[in-house]
Amino acid sequence: MNPAVDLVVVGSVALDTIETPVARRERILGGSASYACAAASFFARAGMVGVVGTDFTAEHRVLFEGLGVDLEGLQVEDGKTFHWSGVYEENMNNRRTVSTDLNVFADFSPELPPGYRSAPYLLLGNIQPELQLHVLDQVETPRFVMADTMNLWIDTAKDALDQVIRRVHLITVNDSEAREYTGEDSLARAARVMLDMGPRHVLVKKGEHGSMLFSKDGVFVLPAFLLDDVADPTGAGDSFAGAFLGVLAASGGTDEAVMRRALVYANVVAAFGVEAFSLERLSTLTRDDIEARVRQFREMTAVAWDD
Amino acid sequence: MNPAVDLVVVGSVALDTIETPVARRERILGGSASYACAAASFFARAGMVGVVGTDFTAEHRVLFEGLGVDLEGLQVEDGKTFHWSGVYEENMNNRRTVSTDLNVFADFSPELPPGYRSAPYLLLGNIQPELQLHVLDQVETPRFVMADTMNLWIDTAKDALDQVIRRVHLITVNDSEAREYTGEDSLARAARVMLDMGPRHVLVKKGEHGSMLFSKDGVFVLPAFLLDDVADPTGAGDSFAGAFLGVLAASGGTDEAVMRRALVYANVVAAFGVEAFSLERLSTLTRDDIEARVRQFREMTAVAWDD
Repeated sequence: MNPAVDLVVVGSVALDTIETPVARRERILGGSASYACAAASFFARAGMVGVVGTDFTAEHRVLFEGLGVDLEGLQVEDGKTFHWSGVYEENMNNRRTVSTDLNVFADFSPELPPGYRSAPYLLLGNIQPELQLHVLDQVETPRFVMADTMNLWIDTAKDALDQVIRRVHLITVNDSEAREYTGEDSLARAARVMLDMGPRHVLVKKGEHGSMLFSKDGVFVLPAFLLDDVADPTGAGDSFAGAFLGVLAASGGTDEAVMRRALVYANVVAAFGVEAFSLERLSTLTRDDIEARVRQFREMTAVAWDD
Repeated sequence: MNPAVDLVVVGSVALDTIETPVARRERILGGSASYACAAASFFARAGMVGVVGTDFTAEHRVLFEGLGVDLEGLQVEDGKTFHWSGVYEENMNNRRTVSTDLNVFADFSPELPPGYRSAPYLLLGNIQPELQLHVLDQVETPRFVMADTMNLWIDTAKDALDQVIRRVHLITVNDSEAREYTGEDSLARAARVMLDMGPRHVLVKKGEHGSMLFSKDGVFVLPAFLLDDVADPTGAGDSFAGAFLGVLAASGGTDEAVMRRALVYANVVAAFGVEAFSLERLSTLTRDDIEARVRQFREMTAVAWDD
């Protein structure tokens, strides 16, 4: 059976309450699957696997459908949608969780619709590693599986996370998570520890400082797109991952050259995402906007050599 | 009169006592002028303007002369050389000063030898802004003047620093200094505040996270060369500045394309410098080593586009 979508994203769908130094917004659409699907949608047909409550409105659904995101894998359960509340301090570098209400997410058991099981690209967004493993058990030999995680799972579910890392093509972490997971201060050493576990690639995100893609053959380092201001950094890593996998899915390849170009696109889409709260910027973005900013990024980083 | 050197560096020459998580070294050669001159020497004839005491040995002199650094501008005074003692903690990101003994540096008044006054390139290394202004008063219409500074002078000598910034072509600061000096959290905004004061370029250093060159026309962003380990980060910014200006001096130009290439070289030379204490690595480095690492850096950052 032909897959119904090019890539599947499993993750959280949330209604977030977020306070930054300049604004506070209540119960706005968020979650790792939301950001990743929206970002991927500019490049490929993304299918979302997640769970929401009855407070997930028709408006939310229309937003995703407008982007071309397939919601067949989105379960609706009696109860409230996962709610996260957090505060960003000063220069957005410190984030403090005020409350986490799991709600319907507490009993989430991701089930892939039949049309999703043969999708060639899979993003295991940041959720419990046990659920990521449960999804891995449902897919048929995908071409490329990418997993994201967070410090919480390093602290509380390391064994399951180890198994996830052994079974994926690419694991993505931020710099502090890479250090915490491996106990190595040097990111180059930390990445090698993770590569030795099995994945072909380790993608280390450094927020405003860019990212690094480690492979057995070498490393690709990329600065971030420079923005004047950030409105809300929530979901930046998820948009980054979603756009990256979307470009891979659109190209049909997974070679180094495609991955490097995909990271530039990921960079640019993530930069758009943080210019506004929630999916506000991503939901009005066009492919032309993205291409224009990719050109800007290339100018921002180009060095002319004689040879 | 033809200048005796291609570029002049004014700054500190020090004997540092440095402790890192892995080693402690006493009274090793350091200082902003030392690192900058050593780094510049691979590309151009650098002349050092500084002061040392009678504990500055023939061995130190031989090291600089072996690199081709001109020491005519190095004053020797009765007393001890400037001594800085510091400790780097954990992942080298926190540096704590244990003691600062100015010694002969307390009465330093930089005087340029006649053969230095017409040098086309000038680096005002990190010293009191008043001394930087005193040097500026001695030079004859240099083609390009670059100034470095630090948080101490922002706190204690802001007026003089303002004057320095108004009179140079390029001011370089690290990210926290850019924020502190301008009161702007956004580095893009901070750079514009400084550009509005007069310099054509603002170079913001972010250590292991790379650097950004702001000009009125745009910005160039560059990741750092990725190292497995850092032995001693002391002097990295000075080596960076020295190599950058050395490449400019060698090219004879100051256009954007030359500056971008110069920053890649600066990146690479600074990365060599931090692989060992003091000038140990820089003093054994060859131009071939540098070119090989420039090629590595280009591979590390290259993206293949169809157009």
